[in-house]
Amino acid sequence: MQLTCDFGLTQQTIAVWESVQHTKPLIQCLTNNVVTQFTANVLLAGGASPAMVETSGEAPLFAEIASGVLINLGTLDPHQIEIMPQVAQAAHQAGTPWVLDPVAVGPLPVRTQLAVQLLDYSPTLIRGNASEILGLSKAAGGPGQSSGRGVDTGDDVDQAITAATYLASRYGSVVAVSGPFDLITDGQRQIRCANGDALLTLVTGGGCALGAYLAAFLAAGSNPLIAAAAGHGAYGLAAQKAAEHSEGPGSFAVHLLDELFTLTGEALETGVILW
Amino acid sequence: MQLTCDFGLTQQTIAVWESVQHTKPLIQCLTNNVVTQFTANVLLAGGASPAMVETSGEAPLFAEIASGVLINLGTLDPHQIEIMPQVAQAAHQAGTPWVLDPVAVGPLPVRTQLAVQLLDYSPTLIRGNASEILGLSKAAGGPGQSSGRGVDTGDDVDQAITAATYLASRYGSVVAVSGPFDLITDGQRQIRCANGDALLTLVTGGGCALGAYLAAFLAAGSNPLIAAAAGHGAYGLAAQKAAEHSEGPGSFAVHLLDELFTLTGEALETGVILW
Amino acid sequence: MQLTCDFGLTQQTIAVWESVQHTKPLIQCLTNNVVTQFTANVLLAGGASPAMVETSGEAPLFAEIASGVLINLGTLDPHQIEIMPQVAQAAHQAGTPWVLDPVAVGPLPVRTQLAVQLLDYSPTLIRGNASEILGLSKAAGGPGQSSGRGVDTGDDVDQAITAATYLASRYGSVVAVSGPFDLITDGQRQIRCANGDALLTLVTGGGCALGAYLAAFLAAGSNPLIAAAAGHGAYGLAAQKAAEHSEGPGSFAVHLLDELFTLTGEALETGVILW
Repeated sequence: MQLTCDFGLTQQTIAVWESVQHTKPLIQCLTNNVVTQFTANVLLAGGASPAMVETSGEAPLFAEIASGVLINLGTLDPHQIEIMPQVAQAAHQAGTPWVLDPVAVGPLPVRTQLAVQLLDYSPTLIRGNASEILGLSKAAGGPGQSSGRGVDTGDDVDQAITAATYLASRYGSVVAVSGPFDLITDGQRQIRCANGDALLTLVTGGGCALGAYLAAFLAAGSNPLIAAAAGHGAYGLAAQKAAEHSEGPGSFAVHLLDELFTLTGEALETGVILW
Repeated sequence: MQLTCDFGLTQQTIAVWESVQHTKPLIQCLTNNVVTQFTANVLLAGGASPAMVETSGEAPLFAEIASGVLINLGTLDPHQIEIMPQVAQAAHQAGTPWVLDPVAVGPLPVRTQLAVQLLDYSPTLIRGNASEILGLSKAAGGPGQSSGRGVDTGDDVDQAITAATYLASRYGSVVAVSGPFDLITDGQRQIRCANGDALLTLVTGGGCALGAYLAAFLAAGSNPLIAAAAGHGAYGLAAQKAAEHSEGPGSFAVHLLDELFTLTGEALETGVILW
Repeated sequence: MQLTCDFGLTQQTIAVWESVQHTKPLIQCLTNNVVTQFTANVLLAGGASPAMVETSGEAPLFAEIASGVLINLGTLDPHQIEIMPQVAQAAHQAGTPWVLDPVAVGPLPVRTQLAVQLLDYSPTLIRGNASEILGLSKAAGGPGQSSGRGVDTGDDVDQAITAATYLASRYGSVVAVSGPFDLITDGQRQIRCANGDALLTLVTGGGCALGAYLAAFLAAGSNPLIAAAAGHGAYGLAAQKAAEHSEGPGSFAVHLLDELFTLTGEALETGVILW
């Protein structure tokens, strides 16, 4: 595994991160009811501003003025199933960057069908683990092979490269596959990220909040591929620093918020591992 | 800015706070789905007892036996839009003190209309930032001028004095405007509070949980204006103490709960800044 | 009060706890919207895997493949009222162990009627405080006498023994009554647990998350009575260890997750108090 860091990517990461701090992007989140609090706190700590607006008659309007939108399918209720396509459409038409997090797509039928429907609105970024990317690709008529059960991933990131490339190329999206080494691709270029810590998988919302954090980076950056990679690097680095002085997942979640808040350009320069 | 502390207010704050500790008010919360956990934990740490009862057929009944009620419009769903007026009416008729938190009212249409509807049930306290108070006042036919986007406030507390006075006088409510210096008014007397810390704005629910905490003070005190001021002083002081040993918003939220739990009359006597 | 520890129970506790660590049971939670995040984090820290699947068309299917199911009635909405019986039925028919947590059953009508309806699907475990067990028993035509208001318990565990025995015998369930000394019974044998800490009552979800944690133990153990007792011992011991270095309920909740994560067979051997 090549671990030579791309210093150009590091500098671009710093630039996008600084832009997030200066512009404080307003991120509309339609997400699952397990992680709303943690997601909002990650956005606040990371320099952005959360708005969990999903009320009928408000949510599509809000997608036009928001800096970025997250749509996470983790705990769909009938209202979300109705409103999410409206919000995705509004974001798409208004040019608001939006992130699709296809939680547990593949084995579960309702969310899988909705995810495929949402692809029509060209998500700026699709973010999931290998099982979810494989499941989504297969449901969309692309390559797939998933052994996932629920939100866990039984598939390796490398197994999802073909599916990620398919989704990226067909829908004009950047696709990010989370794992020990994250993969981010726009269908042509591939970027890898080695930042992160296994404790992220022991805190609920560790991945879901990343989706919102990435929406802030998409809002602040001009190139979605670079912005998504930058967000992975910054978030993963904060996680590594948090893990250094944590005694378990409880203190880790607390420290992650503190580390996102106290992150600096210098820390990013020495700590981000993208290539 | 006058910072001469009113020692009479400090003594009254201690008295209401002690009453909360002794009576453990049962606070029914109909609130947004981002902050339910933190709100319940603030109530528990602060000596009160939370009950998030919003089920049809139960919620209005519960408002009659609860010590206080919070209605927060942050993430309205169709069920909340239907049940909130019933609960407000039940609280009003039963004489249960209730707090209206008009989150993001003004720019967003559905919640703005609902907030105006709820005013008919004379909230004991209306609590918001300057943008929200201005937005609510304007929607209710009073003075207003809001530049708020979502839940952030772009308006200064002082700009909302006229709107707060209007709402207080017309609906028989106490109105509290959160900001660097909080303003609490019943339409005639104005009380200011200098307690608090900027980290409160970086924890989701920092303001929403204050609304629930204030409901406990309204339940325990005989004068809503004094009780609301007392709640601001106690909550803000706990926040200041928490900030002293926090490294960011993650640890701050944890310490805030600890400080609310370990607050004492002595700490209030030396730390509360009300005038 | 007899405090002679049953060393056979301690060894069985270690065995079930080790089985949870090795099998990582997948626990489907239909729970209240105040405690979802904390519940998921308790499961992750405790070695299990959470899945908050309650979407129509997915939830009953998921109950067939999950290792265990939790149904908690804390904040019922119309969708939950409709889906919970379907999930309970699916779990019952598939042989998936499931836990019923009848939050605030007794004084509140909607949840009380639903709880009685769910009893027809023979919960593997019914877990509540004394007021809730008395309220459920009475609603099911058994002995009862509750003075509870909301989720607080005004009743002593010993007052609920008859009700617990009634429910256990009639529905083929294990019944666990939480209190200073927990009581766990299958209608014939009674086990007591002295582990735990009063701070658990000052963290929202302290009891609700235990329900999910117990579902993981039921999934991993062969005897529901022993598994439920083991879960109480392990959870309560982690709480005691967390309380030792906590300054209030905020830090306690964080430490509880860390302690659940770092729990060992040795710690259980010396710390669990079951008899």
